[in-house]
Amino acid sequence: MAATMVKMPTSKVTIAYAPVRGLGAAIKMCCEFAGADYEVFEYQGVENKLEVDAWREGWWADKPAMYEKNSMINIPFVVDGETVVSQSNACLTYLGRKYKLLGSNDAELTKVEQCLCELMDLRNTVVGICYGPPDTYEQRAKDHFDNYVQVSFGKFEKWLTVNKTKFLGADVPTVADFHMFEMLDQHETWCKPLGKPQPLDKFPLLKELHTNIRTHPNLAKYFDGPQYKLTINAKRANFF
Amino acid sequence: MAATMVKMPTSKVTIAYAPVRGLGAAIKMCCEFAGADYEVFEYQGVENKLEVDAWREGWWADKPAMYEKNSMINIPFVVDGETVVSQSNACLTYLGRKYKLLGSNDAELTKVEQCLCELMDLRNTVVGICYGPPDTYEQRAKDHFDNYVQVSFGKFEKWLTVNKTKFLGADVPTVADFHMFEMLDQHETWCKPLGKPQPLDKFPLLKELHTNIRTHPNLAKYFDGPQYKLTINAKRANFF
Repeated sequence: MAATMVKMPTSKVTIAYAPVRGLGAAIKMCCEFAGADYEVFEYQGVENKLEVDAWREGWWADKPAMYEKNSMINIPFVVDGETVVSQSNACLTYLGRKYKLLGSNDAELTKVEQCLCELMDLRNTVVGICYGPPDTYEQRAKDHFDNYVQVSFGKFEKWLTVNKTKFLGADVPTVADFHMFEMLDQHETWCKPLGKPQPLDKFPLLKELHTNIRTHPNLAKYFDGPQYKLTINAKRANFF
Repeated sequence: MAATMVKMPTSKVTIAYAPVRGLGAAIKMCCEFAGADYEVFEYQGVENKLEVDAWREGWWADKPAMYEKNSMINIPFVVDGETVVSQSNACLTYLGRKYKLLGSNDAELTKVEQCLCELMDLRNTVVGICYGPPDTYEQRAKDHFDNYVQVSFGKFEKWLTVNKTKFLGADVPTVADFHMFEMLDQHETWCKPLGKPQPLDKFPLLKELHTNIRTHPNLAKYFDGPQYKLTINAKRANFF
């Protein structure tokens, strides 16, 4: 049988997810940035099965027991002692509270929360294209870069302009910046096979944010390590 | 010209939205439950235009100036003095902090945050059906009741069972319960034209939560007033 997360509590903060970057990346970056003693649990396929995204079988095998602990359970989720948190944005705010990465006051927190929601809208749009029907994928992906990306990235660029902060919530990174980085970084990679220009060339403040996260010393180990080298999406996606 | 929200700050907490229940309902319920001195700003059509959902013109006319204040702007949004908050879940947590409706400790807050995300997933699924292609609407709506609703409501019923609380985050209402009520209430109405049984008959703890919110004295004015009498969706939807 595949490994299971059910035998909790673990001694460390544990992030459970598929072996892809996806929604797990920002959550892992929180722990890494904070210098936390954490571990990543990657679901794997049940033995003797070798197929695309076999890891899903590992997760599906574990899900019923995890559901008994937390009925909102889905991947990614975070286990911290007896606490099991699911829903990506709730994982980010949970870890943000724990590691003080939600801004230094309520005004910054309110900014972080808005950006987290906005980023999830962007992320859901990307997922709809990447995991949608293959026959219309390429056209929809190109349209996405020409239209949606311009509006969405434009909102975030404007946000930084109006708020006059280096990062989305403050002059220091918050949990929202890790998801922002991930979405920007995914688009910088994704544009290439589609023959689209790098979106960040048109958004200088976002480009700076991307660079500042990419070169932040707290995250050097993350970027050099195996987590950042995972595919962006699962292998059944139109782009991974 | 239609009225505008741009002439801020207002003296009261103001919730701006379309004249429908939709995503605005839970936000209004927060203010009402807290006994806040608030007002609702309803976008209306630009004069001399009478068409389905003419209110959208009022919003579109106002949007560029509001974008200058908050680039995440969309309806609903909340204006509180100089603060403009958009994204429904960020509005709910903002008001939840202001009116102490996020639970009494971090463990309850973490529950509230997960439920808010889960409810937004449910809400987005409903929106996809109600505002989707009319030709496949009825079949998709019926499938929704037979399948998605059973799983989704089942998660929330299980949540109440495992957490042993009367409401989603605690034994007293939090912001998540207002959105939970709204989604339950919408489904109780929506099932009728589709000839589907009332979903709550199968989920006793959710039924109790629905009743407890519906009969809560703090909300009597809301349920008797004009906001609860608005259509659930905009009139261009397949169901409103």
